[in-house]
Amino acid sequence: MTEDKHLIPLKVAVVGAGYWGPNLVRNFQSHLGSELLWVCDVDKPRATRAVGRYSTVRVTDNLDDVLCDPKVEALAVATPAATHCKIALMALEAGKHLLVEKPLASSVAEGEAIVELARERGLTLMCDHTYCYTPAVQKIRDLVATGTLGEIQYIDSVRINLGIVQQDIDVFWDLAPHDLSILDFVLPARWQPTAVAAHGGDPIRAGHPCLGYLTMPLTSSAIAHIHVNWLSPTKIRTMIIGGSRRTLVWDDVNPSQRLSVFDRGVDVADTSDSEVRRETLVSYRVGEMVAPALPESEALQSTVREFVAAVRERRPPLTDGDAGLRVLAILEAAGQSLQQHGRLVPLAAALR
Amino acid sequence: MTEDKHLIPLKVAVVGAGYWGPNLVRNFQSHLGSELLWVCDVDKPRATRAVGRYSTVRVTDNLDDVLCDPKVEALAVATPAATHCKIALMALEAGKHLLVEKPLASSVAEGEAIVELARERGLTLMCDHTYCYTPAVQKIRDLVATGTLGEIQYIDSVRINLGIVQQDIDVFWDLAPHDLSILDFVLPARWQPTAVAAHGGDPIRAGHPCLGYLTMPLTSSAIAHIHVNWLSPTKIRTMIIGGSRRTLVWDDVNPSQRLSVFDRGVDVADTSDSEVRRETLVSYRVGEMVAPALPESEALQSTVREFVAAVRERRPPLTDGDAGLRVLAILEAAGQSLQQHGRLVPLAAALR
Amino acid sequence: MTEDKHLIPLKVAVVGAGYWGPNLVRNFQSHLGSELLWVCDVDKPRATRAVGRYSTVRVTDNLDDVLCDPKVEALAVATPAATHCKIALMALEAGKHLLVEKPLASSVAEGEAIVELARERGLTLMCDHTYCYTPAVQKIRDLVATGTLGEIQYIDSVRINLGIVQQDIDVFWDLAPHDLSILDFVLPARWQPTAVAAHGGDPIRAGHPCLGYLTMPLTSSAIAHIHVNWLSPTKIRTMIIGGSRRTLVWDDVNPSQRLSVFDRGVDVADTSDSEVRRETLVSYRVGEMVAPALPESEALQSTVREFVAAVRERRPPLTDGDAGLRVLAILEAAGQSLQQHGRLVPLAAALR
Amino acid sequence: MTEDKHLIPLKVAVVGAGYWGPNLVRNFQSHLGSELLWVCDVDKPRATRAVGRYSTVRVTDNLDDVLCDPKVEALAVATPAATHCKIALMALEAGKHLLVEKPLASSVAEGEAIVELARERGLTLMCDHTYCYTPAVQKIRDLVATGTLGEIQYIDSVRINLGIVQQDIDVFWDLAPHDLSILDFVLPARWQPTAVAAHGGDPIRAGHPCLGYLTMPLTSSAIAHIHVNWLSPTKIRTMIIGGSRRTLVWDDVNPSQRLSVFDRGVDVADTSDSEVRRETLVSYRVGEMVAPALPESEALQSTVREFVAAVRERRPPLTDGDAGLRVLAILEAAGQSLQQHGRLVPLAAALR
Repeated sequence: MTEDKHLIPLKVAVVGAGYWGPNLVRNFQSHLGSELLWVCDVDKPRATRAVGRYSTVRVTDNLDDVLCDPKVEALAVATPAATHCKIALMALEAGKHLLVEKPLASSVAEGEAIVELARERGLTLMCDHTYCYTPAVQKIRDLVATGTLGEIQYIDSVRINLGIVQQDIDVFWDLAPHDLSILDFVLPARWQPTAVAAHGGDPIRAGHPCLGYLTMPLTSSAIAHIHVNWLSPTKIRTMIIGGSRRTLVWDDVNPSQRLSVFDRGVDVADTSDSEVRRETLVSYRVGEMVAPALPESEALQSTVREFVAAVRERRPPLTDGDAGLRVLAILEAAGQSLQQHGRLVPLAAALR
Repeated sequence: MTEDKHLIPLKVAVVGAGYWGPNLVRNFQSHLGSELLWVCDVDKPRATRAVGRYSTVRVTDNLDDVLCDPKVEALAVATPAATHCKIALMALEAGKHLLVEKPLASSVAEGEAIVELARERGLTLMCDHTYCYTPAVQKIRDLVATGTLGEIQYIDSVRINLGIVQQDIDVFWDLAPHDLSILDFVLPARWQPTAVAAHGGDPIRAGHPCLGYLTMPLTSSAIAHIHVNWLSPTKIRTMIIGGSRRTLVWDDVNPSQRLSVFDRGVDVADTSDSEVRRETLVSYRVGEMVAPALPESEALQSTVREFVAAVRERRPPLTDGDAGLRVLAILEAAGQSLQQHGRLVPLAAALR
Repeated sequence: MTEDKHLIPLKVAVVGAGYWGPNLVRNFQSHLGSELLWVCDVDKPRATRAVGRYSTVRVTDNLDDVLCDPKVEALAVATPAATHCKIALMALEAGKHLLVEKPLASSVAEGEAIVELARERGLTLMCDHTYCYTPAVQKIRDLVATGTLGEIQYIDSVRINLGIVQQDIDVFWDLAPHDLSILDFVLPARWQPTAVAAHGGDPIRAGHPCLGYLTMPLTSSAIAHIHVNWLSPTKIRTMIIGGSRRTLVWDDVNPSQRLSVFDRGVDVADTSDSEVRRETLVSYRVGEMVAPALPESEALQSTVREFVAAVRERRPPLTDGDAGLRVLAILEAAGQSLQQHGRLVPLAAALR
Repeated sequence: MTEDKHLIPLKVAVVGAGYWGPNLVRNFQSHLGSELLWVCDVDKPRATRAVGRYSTVRVTDNLDDVLCDPKVEALAVATPAATHCKIALMALEAGKHLLVEKPLASSVAEGEAIVELARERGLTLMCDHTYCYTPAVQKIRDLVATGTLGEIQYIDSVRINLGIVQQDIDVFWDLAPHDLSILDFVLPARWQPTAVAAHGGDPIRAGHPCLGYLTMPLTSSAIAHIHVNWLSPTKIRTMIIGGSRRTLVWDDVNPSQRLSVFDRGVDVADTSDSEVRRETLVSYRVGEMVAPALPESEALQSTVREFVAAVRERRPPLTDGDAGLRVLAILEAAGQSLQQHGRLVPLAAALR
């Protein structure tokens, strides 16, 4: 990520002071490259609570206050997903750069409208795919990119916990953007999902899936699978990335050993001699495990830094609008699969 | 399980001395209700190794030695699944009771032939669904049966490890019988699978899936999901059973706390008033967790005891041929689903 | 703890903005019963960083600014221990209530001077024994007090990590106050330490122990032991409290299961018949384990609430100056033991 | 360890068929370099149970049967420690090689008598310090010997569990021989214990310590500490070996990651300039962690192999009588320390 070299801080406003907004408030305040001017929420006391009783930051329940303030250069939007499109388009029309909470929008069509307008106006659009800015995911991306893991064979991601049963979105739209944005971030183009099958369960009759599974064949005969669940009393956040050379296990609830890279696996000899019996071609490696050192840093601080740097340097951020669209495309296809009893729905080649 | 009250031990022979056979040898030897007469394997030195250099047990590579020995009352068959049917039918013809390693056979048709002949001859047929005889699974069955968990909402089972890539069977036929036989054992009839969707991956080009996922809608809007994997460098054997009252987590690789019963979850108010907003009807419970005491006992010893007792008492064993057939039916349907890109394949009502 | 019923917030200043001070700043700001007026540090930019760039709180490097401000009712002191006595006495002279970071002072004599003056002036003196305000320790205190654990048999506490090698104090003075204040808080009078033996190691030649062990016989033939260590690459924070009825394990780095109460242990029959062989009198219980539900709350918020309530209600706080003195007495005796090769040094009865 | 190249198996007898004896029986039976002729126990049915109902091995309750059998070349003694000396001396007089369960004897004097007689008769005497033959301890020894850990700074060993409260020996004599024999095995001469302080607790009034702590200054300013406990409901078997270059954590109850080698720690600059402030000389390293690959092998099988090889090659075994004496010397000094309230008791230089 780029170092901050810009003396004048970026003037920002945070819109939405619910669950995630206060974290944005805190991080824009502590980042030296930004200056927080406003916090806006339809519930004004909530906005006030987000800044605290000792703050010089202004609060409002009127988005126009923010949009009409010429000093405001950028908005960080952390409102419910259904409102992203409207707010984003207004903000872009007003000439503001945008950091948008995941998912980018409620549909691919909405997302495309946002991406389109940002491009037209030459404004920065960044998706707050926060996990991509954790030291763990940054390291995973390195390990994949440098070939340390070899060819990707399978990915299995589990993200389950006793979560809030959302009224407006199902568990896929709530939790899977994390897994999907991580996959999008760490996988090179040759291992992208080609289709998706989704199965969901709604045993508490919430009206939409409260737990579910996504299965995605990847190009190159690999497979990815995601398990999301709001009802589990235990918290599990584990991603296994199986590779031909090494296999990585990321256990995000184990701060003392988040990443484990196993030099253990199956070797397959390469042969075209069909006479050789298959069983002689598979052997096992038992090797050591390495847990790489990870710096301690808050992902959202890196997110904020990347956003400010992208605006200043007039370049696309690491997790740009297109990344957000790719996540939306899979979520939308998963929704179709759900309605068709888990049928494997192909992903449009354009979005891969 | 029934106590042993029979003075004369059951005379048994173990057929197959590969991976599992030696465990049967050891357990039939230590059980006071049985007497081991033969160990038979096509590879005679392997049979010899199974009994050791100090044994009085006879070994042979000729199945006829066993079948023609009138003293032998029962066979425990631990050969490859493809040979079960032939051996089982011969043994039943020879009037021997049978304990058969999982899976019962290579197909439903074969399994039905075995079950049919055993019934005709009035001989005991038991499937060695060993996990059902672990203290953990016995306890889980109790907790479900007594309503401690409430209504079953979802089941998520993970069984992954660096396993031997089998030549003759895929990972579903190798590992999923464990999960399926456990589900069959612990779930009352009203939560049985109605259909199955299977997705598999063969990233090492072994010729069949080396990792895969089964999704099974259950009657009563619950859902079960199984993840099996031969390629994972970490060993995970976890089953979560979500219930309306409590949720159970079984972690079989944590001997000091295999079962955790969480009094934590989501409460849903029962109302027919459609005016009441849904969100007011969901609330969260945060409660204590109880890890029940489990006796230390070897599952296979309990299996052997149940087998001997079932023979002596002329009653069906807890895991009888029908249990084996139900497992086969799901495996076969999963195979069809695999060939149809994960289509949800209904399970015949008769087998539920 | 008492609920806040006081409308006018307590006006406070935080003195010391190093490691712990910013946490006090944050918690006094968010507590509705207090109002933060000043942050004071000899390094003024550090004080400024502690309040952030958006704050209305005043900062200074001159303690007199704080002491002479008549609006300031109370001070929270988080400076190095060596400075506590001087600052505390000045603050008490100026009529301010005091919350003092652990340890209360550098010696028992200093601590007594502070306690004495606070008593004389009728001002509240509270030790910031933060751990005592965690939900876990509150629960432990309950479990001991209600007899759930039975008679206390042994306590084993381990607090090791890669910690900062302090220049001015050894590892006992840095870390053991946590363990000692917890013991002081949870143990009724009949299980207090009667003596202490200390062994330390300074393998990196820092000039004082960087790791060490305290052994303390308790009244009633129980024993307590504390292991503190700055050099361990793994973080362990575990306390085992063995009781005659149940044994508790507190694992503070396992947020999903901090407390485990085991109904497992050794039963000893009570008999005066010396003819009965001892071995028949010991038997083992294998029982379930219960992990009690704990509320999620920040300990320091509860500490601040208790401090404000104690001031308002003119009552001693839960962790008062005497608690701080008892911790100092053990630390001082441990220092004597260290200089005498681990000799068991009795604790003055007065301080028990 | 030496490979078996001797065609004629060593003829052995196992004496004592209680807790440990059956393990010796099983391992001498499966080792191709040995032939088990007898199992002897004062309780003959117990000896019979140890060999099982299908065995060709002879059992007896008369030690003379074994000692007078000229075919018997060696004895493995697994009787209570108090009987070791008498049995060992008789066996040596009868010309038998000896493998003796830990501890070697009940006192240093007894141990010396055994070592002396074995030396006189030119017979092999090996202590069954089984842990020294685990892959983990073998690896630790390598890591220390090759300097991977650097200078040893501290050792902390915890061995606690719900263990059997022994009638004849205290917890130090029961459990600490494991830790002491491991230290003796892995530490080069320059880091040997120079003294020992012991503190014990007997909260259940068993008549001797049921839990306790040993503290041992080592040569070179390092320190070792051992915690043993029969009363803990949780099983912990952890040894931390802190070194100047790396620190090793051995967690024996975590089979998937027994050893973790941390490249994390404190660096101390070497300087003689007393003007430089100390604090500038300490810095922290945060590095990766490596879990070395360990072969899967049963320690007792390696123990048996080493015993047979040592007899055949007429060389001292890795854990010889002197190793047993060094362990006894520390246990005896610890007993003195216990009686003197934890006084630090020096270890005779001769035994270091």
